Amino acid sequence: MERDRKREGAGGGTGLRPALARCLASLSPLARPTLTRHPLSLSPPQAGFSVFVFLLLGSEDGFSTTWKVDKATGIARAPALYNGAFSTIAFLTGAVTSILSGFLGMKVATFANARTALEARKGIAPAFMTAFRSGAVMGFLLAGLGLLVLYILTAAFRLVYGDDWVGLYEALTGYGLGGSSIALFGRVGGGIYTKAADVGADLVGKVEKDIPEDDPRNPAVIADNVGDNVGDIAGMGADLFGSFAESTCAALVISSVSSLGADHIGPAMAYPLLISAAGLVVCMATTFLATDLRPARVVSEIESTLKNQLIVSTALATPAVLAVSLCALPATFTGIFAADPARAIHAWHLFICVAVGLWGGLAIGISTEYYTSNRYRPVQDVADACRTGAATDIIFGLALGYKSTIVPCFCIALAIFTSFSLASMYGIACAALGMLTTLSTGLAIDAYGPISDNAGGIAEMAAMGEDIRERTDALDAAGNTTAAIGKGFAIGSAALVSLALFGAYTVRAGITAAQSSILDPRIFAGLLVGAMLPYWFSAMTMRSVGQAALAMVEEVRRQFNTIPGLMEGTARPDYRTCVEISTAASLSEMIPPGCLVMLTPLITGVVFGTRTLAGLLAGSLVSGVHMAVSMSNTGGAWDNAKKYVEAGASEHAASLGGKGSDAHKAAVIGDTVGDPLKDTSGPSLNILIKLMAVESLVFAPFFSAHFPNGIVGKLFGME
Amino acid sequence: MERDRKREGAGGGTGLRPALARCLASLSPLARPTLTRHPLSLSPPQAGFSVFVFLLLGSEDGFSTTWKVDKATGIARAPALYNGAFSTIAFLTGAVTSILSGFLGMKVATFANARTALEARKGIAPAFMTAFRSGAVMGFLLAGLGLLVLYILTAAFRLVYGDDWVGLYEALTGYGLGGSSIALFGRVGGGIYTKAADVGADLVGKVEKDIPEDDPRNPAVIADNVGDNVGDIAGMGADLFGSFAESTCAALVISSVSSLGADHIGPAMAYPLLISAAGLVVCMATTFLATDLRPARVVSEIESTLKNQLIVSTALATPAVLAVSLCALPATFTGIFAADPARAIHAWHLFICVAVGLWGGLAIGISTEYYTSNRYRPVQDVADACRTGAATDIIFGLALGYKSTIVPCFCIALAIFTSFSLASMYGIACAALGMLTTLSTGLAIDAYGPISDNAGGIAEMAAMGEDIRERTDALDAAGNTTAAIGKGFAIGSAALVSLALFGAYTVRAGITAAQSSILDPRIFAGLLVGAMLPYWFSAMTMRSVGQAALAMVEEVRRQFNTIPGLMEGTARPDYRTCVEISTAASLSEMIPPGCLVMLTPLITGVVFGTRTLAGLLAGSLVSGVHMAVSMSNTGGAWDNAKKYVEAGASEHAASLGGKGSDAHKAAVIGDTVGDPLKDTSGPSLNILIKLMAVESLVFAPFFSAHFPNGIVGKLFGME
Repeated sequence: MERDRKREGAGGGTGLRPALARCLASLSPLARPTLTRHPLSLSPPQAGFSVFVFLLLGSEDGFSTTWKVDKATGIARAPALYNGAFSTIAFLTGAVTSILSGFLGMKVATFANARTALEARKGIAPAFMTAFRSGAVMGFLLAGLGLLVLYILTAAFRLVYGDDWVGLYEALTGYGLGGSSIALFGRVGGGIYTKAADVGADLVGKVEKDIPEDDPRNPAVIADNVGDNVGDIAGMGADLFGSFAESTCAALVISSVSSLGADHIGPAMAYPLLISAAGLVVCMATTFLATDLRPARVVSEIESTLKNQLIVSTALATPAVLAVSLCALPATFTGIFAADPARAIHAWHLFICVAVGLWGGLAIGISTEYYTSNRYRPVQDVADACRTGAATDIIFGLALGYKSTIVPCFCIALAIFTSFSLASMYGIACAALGMLTTLSTGLAIDAYGPISDNAGGIAEMAAMGEDIRERTDALDAAGNTTAAIGKGFAIGSAALVSLALFGAYTVRAGITAAQSSILDPRIFAGLLVGAMLPYWFSAMTMRSVGQAALAMVEEVRRQFNTIPGLMEGTARPDYRTCVEISTAASLSEMIPPGCLVMLTPLITGVVFGTRTLAGLLAGSLVSGVHMAVSMSNTGGAWDNAKKYVEAGASEHAASLGGKGSDAHKAAVIGDTVGDPLKDTSGPSLNILIKLMAVESLVFAPFFSAHFPNGIVGKLFGME
Repeated sequence: MERDRKREGAGGGTGLRPALARCLASLSPLARPTLTRHPLSLSPPQAGFSVFVFLLLGSEDGFSTTWKVDKATGIARAPALYNGAFSTIAFLTGAVTSILSGFLGMKVATFANARTALEARKGIAPAFMTAFRSGAVMGFLLAGLGLLVLYILTAAFRLVYGDDWVGLYEALTGYGLGGSSIALFGRVGGGIYTKAADVGADLVGKVEKDIPEDDPRNPAVIADNVGDNVGDIAGMGADLFGSFAESTCAALVISSVSSLGADHIGPAMAYPLLISAAGLVVCMATTFLATDLRPARVVSEIESTLKNQLIVSTALATPAVLAVSLCALPATFTGIFAADPARAIHAWHLFICVAVGLWGGLAIGISTEYYTSNRYRPVQDVADACRTGAATDIIFGLALGYKSTIVPCFCIALAIFTSFSLASMYGIACAALGMLTTLSTGLAIDAYGPISDNAGGIAEMAAMGEDIRERTDALDAAGNTTAAIGKGFAIGSAALVSLALFGAYTVRAGITAAQSSILDPRIFAGLLVGAMLPYWFSAMTMRSVGQAALAMVEEVRRQFNTIPGLMEGTARPDYRTCVEISTAASLSEMIPPGCLVMLTPLITGVVFGTRTLAGLLAGSLVSGVHMAVSMSNTGGAWDNAKKYVEAGASEHAASLGGKGSDAHKAAVIGDTVGDPLKDTSGPSLNILIKLMAVESLVFAPFFSAHFPNGIVGKLFGME
């Protein structure tokens, strides 16, 4: 502590290089507790949970170790103990891969922050290029690593499982669970971390002390900057890595019971991996558009350059996916429809499933942009409502969020209807994969946001001058909109992934159509309780942010009151304590929501049986998606409404009075309310719905072996 | 206009009687446009819709007029034209009965307002008695009238239908649809009316001009008072009348296909009516507790006296319901379970179904009280969050609302699970009836709220003195909590009623368990879109309130700026224009949400078929219930947090600073945001889920005759 302060110097001094060096020096060691303790380590819960996975799945057949030959197909099936052991290995591998991607992503991001700030001295174009390239590194790293590890894991497992595709892919589902359990830490813990710091810093700094955002005098400013990396880089990365791993696993599990699996058609079985690989190549090619062919040279080109990345990669991916579908798959295959196993699926059917997901994702992204960018009417209306105060700002913002659920809902419903009709649950899994084909582009433009945001923070803290700060602000404004697109994309893919996992769960738990009627009291009660879970979960995460922010407010106030010369800039604040408060709060406050997510499927499955669990998953999915979309967009709209009032760029915006006016104060209140909605509770719902579904899928054999109708069903003699 | 002003005098004067006379004179003629034009007239849409009902249902069998003999039972079935004609008659009767109850309820309430204010001069006890008795008149009037008209209608229809119970009760479902379509006007239109006036009055009066609530100088004050009657008396009444009519009709439709209907067991077929009748008697007996045995004599007794009404009537209703079940029903009967028609239902099974609804309703009421009364921790925490400003107040309030969904969800899920397991959809309908057994008590304590509220308004406007105003404020504070209980009760019963209607719909549309699997893409897409509808609907209603409030703000500002002497109290404001703005806004702004509710089931049924419609209804139900609970409780909590800060009764409350402090200003912002949530959007969702379900039920024969799989299904050859 003492040593740190000495090394960093006693503050003051306005030279650029020493200031920057101080900033980086203060950022990296302080960020380290987060890097090593927070979302990026295999924590005791994870290690404990892996033992749990082993015991539960191994117990399915009394920890048997004998291979059984399936009479219908003549294929030797691996014993239950193998399932337990290899599921655990896959779980740990998934967790480690996710941690590694997050760790490397944050490393890249923290280096890129400072370099972007430095490049901003030369102009907009080089700064944009640095930020965008760094985002792309993060995107391709994550998508590539995920795919590579999954391929190696499959190849390794084949040495043991031989021709038992069903057993192999069932064990592989652990990979998705591992990835998603890290996402729980990244999204939920990271979300609490970043918003506790942000809300705490704003409430004292901007509201009480009237000092600008990212001012180095604010003790919570480093925690806020670290939080952007934890929540938006590691959290978003882990979330989308989880979606990728889960949708691939879901597709593999479903296809393993089809004729593709029975006939050992290798390339066809690898179809989900090939789609993702094709996506990687297409996204890689698309980046040249932004880096070489048509790079952004002026401010007004930034947002469209980023949006074009998504549009062009979607357009290019379509023929690539068609080619993969026609080459890898046989002209027809069967065994996908449980009710009608003989029904033939054509290769082009799967192409349509993937394409509908791909284009649905783009449509959701564009709709999100419309509702959250202040270049369009909805956000301008919210800004206009600030005239009559914070109350109308909030009423209009909530209404905007509710309304913004309409287009994503119809996109997802159309994707579900089409892909489900063409290829049942396998179609859904392919639609989810389709939406994730442009994953690396999505991640690149999403990671661009926090990188530019923190470049601005570093410029402010290093006192690099007004013009540099203006350039980084312009980069950041575009990043806000693309971050909202990324969130819409993450939610849309989470919905499809969860449904695919849900489908794989029903296959694995042996639930037939007649057993899953909404007229069944178990299913309906499950639906109702499932639809409530996003509310319960959000109540927890929002309260967590509130509590952690209050603790941060007290610490920041204490420092302003007790450290002499802090407001005058002659003394350095104690950044470290604020970072520690955020770290401790995020770890302790995520325990209740984490338990809700992890225990609900287990308790429901054991006590009420597999059918109630099916209802619960469907209910949490249909309710959670809309809530997540509405929360994210409401928060994004409030944020950009505030920016709209501040910038005062148009005649209408200028009439609202600009910074410091009553309308601006109202807009700041809306923005603060929106912070936990858009960065903690909303994105965390993705994890809720995905993690419950993948956990149910992993434990489905355990439930159906021991508790097909649950303890309650056994007591009341239900069938 | 000129004449009015002359008759009312030119303002000024502090004598009690002339002031009161002026108030009443200004209230009644101004309220008249509302009474005659707004929710209480058979408007052109209703008349048009009745023609629509006739045409759609009459067309089922090509407007046939011949009786057909059912081969299985030998019973002559009435022709489709009869179904169309008598459904239309039932629809109009239901609408007229709902209008009549609302009209009489508002008459009673407007008279009671002034009398309660006058009685408050004598003390708390007589004022409480007047308000409570008036509420009870409203409650018994509505429940009694609803039951009587339904009985007369059944008896009259029997003259035509003879032994065709199925046809008779199918036609009778129009009664529920009629009642609910009026509730659309009362709840949605009334909700927009009351909150446009309230928010508009507050934004200019309290925030800009700093004059107290209900100050006669505020031009919107009369519109605000009228709004309390329109929204909380007529709206709540029409909502619960709709629930009563619909649950009875749903129970009758389902029981008509059972052995009770086939064997013509009169008393058993009238079981739903008998349960309601027993409830009426029990509630009547319970009122003596509040009026004679243990009336409230001091302020602290008011809230418990009202709450005891609900607890005692629930306790007394239990043996009454048991007696009715054992007397009216045969020991066993069959034909309730579609999958297993031979399964015997015992009389005590139905008793349990009714009892679980009855006690579930009480539990929901008590949970609602816990989350919205400022005597408990949750609201005190929200009040405490006002210390750090409006943003934390709103974050904590939203989290409270989310959390408050847990208990009602488990209560409803338990009621569904138990009653569904015991007696399938008939059990659900009986559970809904059970929750509505204490309807008249619920309505009485709910109507007590706006009556006391307006008594306070009249006391303020008539300058009746500080002590009188304090007494009416104490009456009102208790009314706020009971109003929240009433809302919880309305939502809980709406959920069960909708599910019962949904069950009746599936019976009538001939959807089997195997056809209603959540694994069916049509069902799942329906679920997803259905879960989105409450968001869309709420976006519309919240925007409507916002728009109407902005219009009101402009008018009130205009009057303050252009009428000389208004602020000084020497000139009268133009109340009439404000009333007209609220009336016009509520009528025009309710068209889009009204269309969404009325057209969605028709379009879905025709285009996508009966199964997608089933998914849609289930989705809107499970999502809408939680959203309604969360909105109502969030709003109620903000309101009472504000009152907690204002009253400063405890040490903690006093530490927040009281009226005029920063914490109080933050609490006022929260309260204003909560107004449309708790009084417009939240309660309107009851109507959304019920009205879509009853409409689907009424038109089920039309859909299954012409579009069993919808136009899309026909195009794509789905089965």
